[in-house]
Amino acid sequence: MYDGLKGFREFYSGEQSARREVTDAIEDAAARYGFREVATPALERTAMYVDKSGEEIVDELYAFEDKGGRGVSLTPELTPTVARMVVAKGQELSKPIKWLSTRPFWRYEQVQQGRFREFYQTNVDVFGSAAPEADAEVLAVAADALTALGLTGDDFEFHVSHRDILGGLVRALADDPDAVDTGAAIRAVDKRAKVDDGEYFGLLSDAGLDRATAREFDDLITGVETVADLDTVAAAGGEDVEAAVENLRNVLAAAADFGAGRFCEVSLTTARGLDYYTGVVFECFDSTGEVSRSVFGGGRYDDLIESFGGQPTPAVGVAPGHATLKLLCQRAGVWPDEALSTDYYVLSVGDTREKAAEIARGLRELGHVVESDVSDRSFGGQLGYADSINAETVVVVGERDLANDEVTVKDMASGDETTAPVDEFPPASGRPTYEDYE
Amino acid sequence: MYDGLKGFREFYSGEQSARREVTDAIEDAAARYGFREVATPALERTAMYVDKSGEEIVDELYAFEDKGGRGVSLTPELTPTVARMVVAKGQELSKPIKWLSTRPFWRYEQVQQGRFREFYQTNVDVFGSAAPEADAEVLAVAADALTALGLTGDDFEFHVSHRDILGGLVRALADDPDAVDTGAAIRAVDKRAKVDDGEYFGLLSDAGLDRATAREFDDLITGVETVADLDTVAAAGGEDVEAAVENLRNVLAAAADFGAGRFCEVSLTTARGLDYYTGVVFECFDSTGEVSRSVFGGGRYDDLIESFGGQPTPAVGVAPGHATLKLLCQRAGVWPDEALSTDYYVLSVGDTREKAAEIARGLRELGHVVESDVSDRSFGGQLGYADSINAETVVVVGERDLANDEVTVKDMASGDETTAPVDEFPPASGRPTYEDYE
Repeated sequence: MYDGLKGFREFYSGEQSARREVTDAIEDAAARYGFREVATPALERTAMYVDKSGEEIVDELYAFEDKGGRGVSLTPELTPTVARMVVAKGQELSKPIKWLSTRPFWRYEQVQQGRFREFYQTNVDVFGSAAPEADAEVLAVAADALTALGLTGDDFEFHVSHRDILGGLVRALADDPDAVDTGAAIRAVDKRAKVDDGEYFGLLSDAGLDRATAREFDDLITGVETVADLDTVAAAGGEDVEAAVENLRNVLAAAADFGAGRFCEVSLTTARGLDYYTGVVFECFDSTGEVSRSVFGGGRYDDLIESFGGQPTPAVGVAPGHATLKLLCQRAGVWPDEALSTDYYVLSVGDTREKAAEIARGLRELGHVVESDVSDRSFGGQLGYADSINAETVVVVGERDLANDEVTVKDMASGDETTAPVDEFPPASGRPTYEDYE
Repeated sequence: MYDGLKGFREFYSGEQSARREVTDAIEDAAARYGFREVATPALERTAMYVDKSGEEIVDELYAFEDKGGRGVSLTPELTPTVARMVVAKGQELSKPIKWLSTRPFWRYEQVQQGRFREFYQTNVDVFGSAAPEADAEVLAVAADALTALGLTGDDFEFHVSHRDILGGLVRALADDPDAVDTGAAIRAVDKRAKVDDGEYFGLLSDAGLDRATAREFDDLITGVETVADLDTVAAAGGEDVEAAVENLRNVLAAAADFGAGRFCEVSLTTARGLDYYTGVVFECFDSTGEVSRSVFGGGRYDDLIESFGGQPTPAVGVAPGHATLKLLCQRAGVWPDEALSTDYYVLSVGDTREKAAEIARGLRELGHVVESDVSDRSFGGQLGYADSINAETVVVVGERDLANDEVTVKDMASGDETTAPVDEFPPASGRPTYEDYE
């Protein structure tokens, strides 16, 4: 017997039916905004990640040399791949480009609750618009996806931040702006909730902020709880920060128009870890705090396409991760039922296989899920199997039934049964059940 | 600018919409028979393939050592993984187990038309039934999937064969049955249409058949064109072959009852390359021969689960490969349109964003694909974009429209436009177009 690999999962049919329902809900929400599905390779050249995605990713790659001597990696995220695709065909594509895809990604990291080495995300991205409506549309898609799953404003909230506010503040507060590593300071903010105070201020110190400045910076970003509080930050930060505050306000105003405002909170302690983010960034959290980590996040990455050799192309996206989303759905009691469902089992006894198959085909043509015997089972064996797959209705096609020009229609919940004329079964449309013939 | 890897493809939104339509058609066909989706990992232990899947696969694996020192491979096919899953939970699962999944797989092989290093398949498998109805159901699912795509009996045919007929004949004809490598003889039959006569008979010779016996064997298998012709083969082959012929006839009879008979032809020159097949095997071909290779295939693998350490569990499956299926669909003129389609573009001009967003949301709640401006564009710019995404209807929400309590409804095909009362737009249901308000 062979084992699977640690951090890699198999999903049996019950669990997968729930996962499919959740994936469909997310994809449908995005598709209704005109996001179009793309499909992308599982392997890319390792150089693309080494060059572009920051050191912290490289250590986690499933990287190897292929039989042709190429350095390749299992894709740890979608963004570099779609950036490459935009560069390759950017001129041909009408802007904004709005793409959607659900896929596994791979990182060699510690396995823990809600974190696996093979993990699934739905990526939703807009390329070619710098307007606040693009950021807001991405937030609206995320909100629609979550509410479609049955989650409410009591369950989740989006913590919306802005990289240029954080970076601008750091530079404005520092004695020597050029001596500060704003990227490192932003990464420190991203770690703020995950490490203790000493480590956090140590990281800010490493980024070039002295103790007093780091305190002032932290007081400013933790002091913002509402949009109005952004005035203080704008005043402290100078022109760049003022522009970023204005942009954040515009995004939140557009998100409100788009119906997502009630889920959005300003939170400057949100930063996102990846280096390529610019502008607005956000993370989705469990409002109850029971799921303690960020459920998923997103944001702007306006410079990435150009850094890949393309025309300057602003971009913004969000990528719900399915494992943490499952934790949130389970906490809120909205994770879909994992039981199998079956509309019909067509039970053939005696020499009735051809007629039973014709009835099963007729029901399938109406769009229903219909099983029939493929195991040469007795009446009782078939009924037991029909029960095990939660068949709603069993249609018995026996020799005696057919001699009477009938079939027997059995409701599996109640056990009640009746007969229906075989010439009229199934009808030309609908979903015939016991009630239609009793 | 970064390049993708040879043999790995990106699918942009137009092509992907066609691929999605085809995948959905295949999955829907299988789902209506009660096949249930499972999801499986992209990496497995290399040992599983080295031990079980035959030498010819091992050379083609994307195999490497992970950071924990494990020998791992990108999965080249689904069957060993689902076999492992059946072994792990076989006792808990009600039989027959009917599974479905669409995924990419990876093999390091020569890239050519319809063959890539990353390729997509939909696998449809039944575990736990040895009955001919199981084989027939798999054929029926394949037939339903292809006809759902618009293909007809003029487009495709299933060449149905039986491993035990081939193996039994080889042993019956050989002077010393124990000196013949029946597996090698079957692989020779699988190569028959791809190599010249000399090479084919050379392979049969390598398998242990002398020249005269190889000729006799080949005459017997090429002499079968109909079910009736199987009598000759049964007579030549003895008991084992007779039983296999009976099984093949039963499968074809069940397939006929299940509505797939008109697509099935007996063809003993069909063998399938993989070692784990037993019993009935089949391949789908382009009836016109224009797509010269097998489009996809399937068959029984009754011994695999037991060889993986499980209870004896007969199994049968089919795995349409999407690349060759695309070639067939294109040849037959039924490959779906690759153009984007959009139900509505809601065009906001002036200070109307909030109302326009409300209308867009209302249309989305009716299930439609609705785009609106996220790029701060002019009226003309928005109309041009709406045209580029093939919007069917544009709803103009202008300040003057709203002052008149109206919106403008424009049919993009004709250019005709009319107005609709804003309070009644969108209506509570349906798909409002120009015709509803003219």
